[in-house]
Amino acid sequence: MAQTHLSATKSQKERVREMEIMNAGMGETSYAKNSKVQLKVISMTMPIIEEAITNLYYNSTSPSSLVIADFGCSSGPNTLFAVSELIKVVEKLRRQQGQQSPEYQVFLNDLPENDFNVIFKLLPSFQKKFSSQLGVDAGSFFFSGVPGSFYGRLFPKKSLHFTFSSYSLHWLSQVPEHLENNKRSIYISSTSPPNVAKAYYAQFQKDFSMFLKSRAEELAVGGRMVLTFLGRKSEDPSTKECCYIWEVLAIALCDMVDKGLIGEEKLDSFNLPHYAPSASEVKSVVLMENYFSIDRLEVSELKWSSMFGERNFSEAVADLAMCVRAVVEPFLVSHFGDAIIEEVFRKYKEILAGSVCKESSSIMNVTISLTKRG
Amino acid sequence: MAQTHLSATKSQKERVREMEIMNAGMGETSYAKNSKVQLKVISMTMPIIEEAITNLYYNSTSPSSLVIADFGCSSGPNTLFAVSELIKVVEKLRRQQGQQSPEYQVFLNDLPENDFNVIFKLLPSFQKKFSSQLGVDAGSFFFSGVPGSFYGRLFPKKSLHFTFSSYSLHWLSQVPEHLENNKRSIYISSTSPPNVAKAYYAQFQKDFSMFLKSRAEELAVGGRMVLTFLGRKSEDPSTKECCYIWEVLAIALCDMVDKGLIGEEKLDSFNLPHYAPSASEVKSVVLMENYFSIDRLEVSELKWSSMFGERNFSEAVADLAMCVRAVVEPFLVSHFGDAIIEEVFRKYKEILAGSVCKESSSIMNVTISLTKRG
Repeated sequence: MAQTHLSATKSQKERVREMEIMNAGMGETSYAKNSKVQLKVISMTMPIIEEAITNLYYNSTSPSSLVIADFGCSSGPNTLFAVSELIKVVEKLRRQQGQQSPEYQVFLNDLPENDFNVIFKLLPSFQKKFSSQLGVDAGSFFFSGVPGSFYGRLFPKKSLHFTFSSYSLHWLSQVPEHLENNKRSIYISSTSPPNVAKAYYAQFQKDFSMFLKSRAEELAVGGRMVLTFLGRKSEDPSTKECCYIWEVLAIALCDMVDKGLIGEEKLDSFNLPHYAPSASEVKSVVLMENYFSIDRLEVSELKWSSMFGERNFSEAVADLAMCVRAVVEPFLVSHFGDAIIEEVFRKYKEILAGSVCKESSSIMNVTISLTKRG
Repeated sequence: MAQTHLSATKSQKERVREMEIMNAGMGETSYAKNSKVQLKVISMTMPIIEEAITNLYYNSTSPSSLVIADFGCSSGPNTLFAVSELIKVVEKLRRQQGQQSPEYQVFLNDLPENDFNVIFKLLPSFQKKFSSQLGVDAGSFFFSGVPGSFYGRLFPKKSLHFTFSSYSLHWLSQVPEHLENNKRSIYISSTSPPNVAKAYYAQFQKDFSMFLKSRAEELAVGGRMVLTFLGRKSEDPSTKECCYIWEVLAIALCDMVDKGLIGEEKLDSFNLPHYAPSASEVKSVVLMENYFSIDRLEVSELKWSSMFGERNFSEAVADLAMCVRAVVEPFLVSHFGDAIIEEVFRKYKEILAGSVCKESSSIMNVTISLTKRG
């Protein structure tokens, strides 16, 4: 593995604070990547992203342009966090080396339903602030929005240098088929029949293979890619590590059935297009496809206590509920209609507050850093 | 000048009909490029765009990718018209030559306030229809949205092959300064003092120079650019050819002053950030900047009678009023508020219907085709 520079990186607290300053005046919205949990996760994985971009920079001879893509950028205050951090790293390196700034072309990808207008309207002031933060001789930044599913091609061949995806690849392209017997559950749970976990894993393998194949065509040889999934440490796919937030949601939905607000069959036919893989599952798909070499593979744990402390437990619960709601509300509305949503999440918060263990609750993340083979 | 292929191009009627079919189900919206006038103008200039892309294709050796940018794409049914026409031309040429399809990377640029979400949501069905129209071995199309003013850099150096701008460059980056004495007018008019036309031309020169300088950096050597302005044949900047639609708007606004709906000073301080250049004015800026060689420079006239005929005169007036309203409403609302808008355009249509000559009314377009020098 090439030289690493993890020691020189900033503390998470510094990063989060800087991003809060950059985002001042953006207002509160409720998109998928807007919660404090999300920002914390992205900032936790930044050292790995920085290591990868540093190695890319050292292995290219004073690049005149650097083409970067964020797969699953979402639209909210956190959208530009990772990309601005990694440009800062390159600017620092090129100053150390006495080199000219490359031109940065940044592609922000998400599904066509993503609110790109919101991001685009923020870009002029972001670019102004960011340039002045970087100093007078900073490079130029060119931003584009790319609508489309990342489970397919989005860019011409060999047109990208650095790509990343933070907290998006645990969303599948579709709900796996043949989950009819996954009764009173909405994902893999401890009570799900064995075919359920198998169907979910098969869909994950198919989707992630397609993602790797597409990116392998788009990345230049030697290009880097860092991917972070909501994942798990355990090899058991029904572990509470990753399934708990969905089990609680299933309980809240069962409560709606008990109250006669939704039909039992309606609940039984609902399953989430989501999969939280283990590190070895991620690794096995990468090795099978063989387009990339693995530079780093890590499971990191984000403890709630580290974020909120004892006193802010209710804030932590509210933040987690907001985060879960932001991502699953569209699925729930399209299946159940929007009349029950408020009640579902009131119940969700209630169950969460009463059941989550303050000290040991955490979120598991799997991060893999890859280099495109020659 | 290189070999041209204008004879092989389709009739305008065929083009417009095809586009109407492609856009079926898009619904009616009221954006700046949505009117029949707009679609007709774009289809009128298509032979020049086709000539330019054909020459570009013949001068490159089987390109593996073709990077195209539309400056001022707007958001409506006409947004994808020119780009789909030019991809069709390349697909025809490469089939004739027995070559592989290039990968098409298409950048759609407009100001950050443009509704990119609307375009992005239409892209999946557009791409599906378009691919099936082109046939099984058609190339891949990758679309991106690029928010920002085209009076500045938007792309990395030498990253584009073919660019065009249809009906956007007659919008200036700002209202010219020192127009205080342009009373009861909102643009250059026959009653405007001489400094008004001078100030407008100076702003046009400054803006268009900046546009050319930016594009010259972004285009690869030999890259092509085709620009269409709402312009004029006459060298007199206050000619009715281009100023009439604004003089009518000024009369409608004066009527609001007479009715006491807006103050006289409020009207006197309002001027449009617009300039309709002559062919020689466009040419002189291009020659002065010297980044491009001129392949073609044309003034074309779009006669209303050719579009609507005698019987559909009221439709023509309504379409023109809709077109004018779509582009100037934001300026009017920001200066006068939105309370008077309906009344202004009721009056506008009334004056237009009573004064426009059915046979001789027309719109002048200036189109220039350029090649980036080595």
